Amino acid sequence: MKKVDISELRYGTTLLKKGFAQMQKGGVVMDVTNAKQAKIAEDAGAVAVMALERVPADIRKDGGVARMADPSVIENIIDSVSIPVMAKARIGHFAEAEALQTLGVDMIDESEVLTPADPFYHINKHDFTIPFVCGCRNLGEAVRRIWEGAAMIRTKGEAGTGNIIEAVRHQRMVNRMIQLLKDVDNEYLVDLSETYAKSYVTAFETLTDSTPDENSLVFHNFSYEDVKKKIFTVLEEVKKLQRLPVVNFAAGGVATPTDASLMMKLGSDGVFVGSGIFKSGNPKQRAKAIVESVAHFNEPEVVAEVSKNLGEAMVGINIEDIPDEQRLQERGW
Amino acid sequence: MKKVDISELRYGTTLLKKGFAQMQKGGVVMDVTNAKQAKIAEDAGAVAVMALERVPADIRKDGGVARMADPSVIENIIDSVSIPVMAKARIGHFAEAEALQTLGVDMIDESEVLTPADPFYHINKHDFTIPFVCGCRNLGEAVRRIWEGAAMIRTKGEAGTGNIIEAVRHQRMVNRMIQLLKDVDNEYLVDLSETYAKSYVTAFETLTDSTPDENSLVFHNFSYEDVKKKIFTVLEEVKKLQRLPVVNFAAGGVATPTDASLMMKLGSDGVFVGSGIFKSGNPKQRAKAIVESVAHFNEPEVVAEVSKNLGEAMVGINIEDIPDEQRLQERGW
Repeated sequence: MKKVDISELRYGTTLLKKGFAQMQKGGVVMDVTNAKQAKIAEDAGAVAVMALERVPADIRKDGGVARMADPSVIENIIDSVSIPVMAKARIGHFAEAEALQTLGVDMIDESEVLTPADPFYHINKHDFTIPFVCGCRNLGEAVRRIWEGAAMIRTKGEAGTGNIIEAVRHQRMVNRMIQLLKDVDNEYLVDLSETYAKSYVTAFETLTDSTPDENSLVFHNFSYEDVKKKIFTVLEEVKKLQRLPVVNFAAGGVATPTDASLMMKLGSDGVFVGSGIFKSGNPKQRAKAIVESVAHFNEPEVVAEVSKNLGEAMVGINIEDIPDEQRLQERGW
Repeated sequence: MKKVDISELRYGTTLLKKGFAQMQKGGVVMDVTNAKQAKIAEDAGAVAVMALERVPADIRKDGGVARMADPSVIENIIDSVSIPVMAKARIGHFAEAEALQTLGVDMIDESEVLTPADPFYHINKHDFTIPFVCGCRNLGEAVRRIWEGAAMIRTKGEAGTGNIIEAVRHQRMVNRMIQLLKDVDNEYLVDLSETYAKSYVTAFETLTDSTPDENSLVFHNFSYEDVKKKIFTVLEEVKKLQRLPVVNFAAGGVATPTDASLMMKLGSDGVFVGSGIFKSGNPKQRAKAIVESVAHFNEPEVVAEVSKNLGEAMVGINIEDIPDEQRLQERGW
């Protein structure tokens, strides 16, 4: 009898990866640092939890290098809840990603909230059977992550600030570019593919001190010619679908039920909440309220009702008070 | 029998929205953070109260992200007074505005005192039946907010400083531009419309990395051509009326009865007082004195009389002591 490889059942093809991501649609994914928080998130109706070492607000406050969480903590979280468990890996740190994959995590967030590990490359997500989610600030970043194999995209926003303005910025920028693509011709798409591929050229140049030709491997084992073609294919699909070809969540700065409903109204397929919950006065109640607000984002009377008596919201930070070099959204490209 | 939609009775057309704003004329609107303060404001003769999470001086001192107040607090305030209740929403945060509308608030202040939520757009106030008030520093900002649907304009001033100079600056700038319009020709108005529409072009460019043509949607679903026409229409009306076509209040830095009468003498239709009252030594008496001073702004003997024995005024801040990035008036454009 043929031996069944469990990892093949568990993870799989691009289709399966995107399918898992789609199952999260309309839901709220909550950052948790231990099993107790994970249980609170599950009870509140979170569609999944995101395991990480420290919530973004603490990473921001305490500084230091932020890395993948301790695998024993991740295992505890997996054992304590029945909803999917996602976990963060550093940008480009494929060894962290491989470790997370073997732990049985359901999705990896290649996240700018952790300290980046590779100055040249993001992870080649095609090498993995586990699905990935990646952050973006604009359509170019979204398209680069998608052809690299991301099964889900989220706004970067500015994590750990409790300030929604950057998530709004990133969502609006993606939306408007998609809208503009509607009426452009093939030539425009070719030019845009070239523009979006330029970031790989820049990375290659800093890596090799030379300019790539068509056959140069500018992203792991992909040539510059390949990359342009792959990007073109994604852009064609975006133009046709008039949306990203993967689910697109809001993240980075969500702190209130109205923040969550605002992002849904701007077209997000779901919401990640990080520090906004466990840095607030009453995490249990706020978590529930945000889940309700996402489910009923088009019913302002429900959103208003669940917003009552939530206690103190996360204190938050105004973006202009953050020095440029401390803006997490600048990580990755 | 046709079912009556209560929200239709409660709110309404542009005419009704502007009408509500006009009913506040000659009055004082006071910032309150709870029902007790609202009662003090009502007893002092406030024409309306403004519900917010923290008064501007505390927002300035404590920092953090300033958001819509807790809906349960707003409901308490509504239940505790018989005068209209206004409430603040973040610039561009239309989900907060929708929640406030369903709560039965009478007017929304899309306010730079709270942390902005959208880097590109103010709220499309035409989408709402509830009236809005917005701040301005000059005629351009006033005209942009008016065509966007604001039913009332106020100076931005510099909230939370107890320092009247910025409110005077903004009121004088609006007045002088209106005066200059008196003798200009049509061509000048067309040029000025274009100048005032430029801010939407800048926003569009940062949003899309491209320059708009006449049909580009530069503000929600309004094209650049639309925007210029709308602005022209408002400017024509301003020129003809020799005033803004909506009521124009003073706000941002009013701390004494003479501050209030000064602004009325400069042509304000009424006054918003924020930190000036509840950060002073004797809020009850000061609130009454400011109401009297606005009602009798042309009778200096009354103003002098009510200014007696008010105890300590709000300490206040000199504008030059505030770093540029902490000036609330810079928010919005």
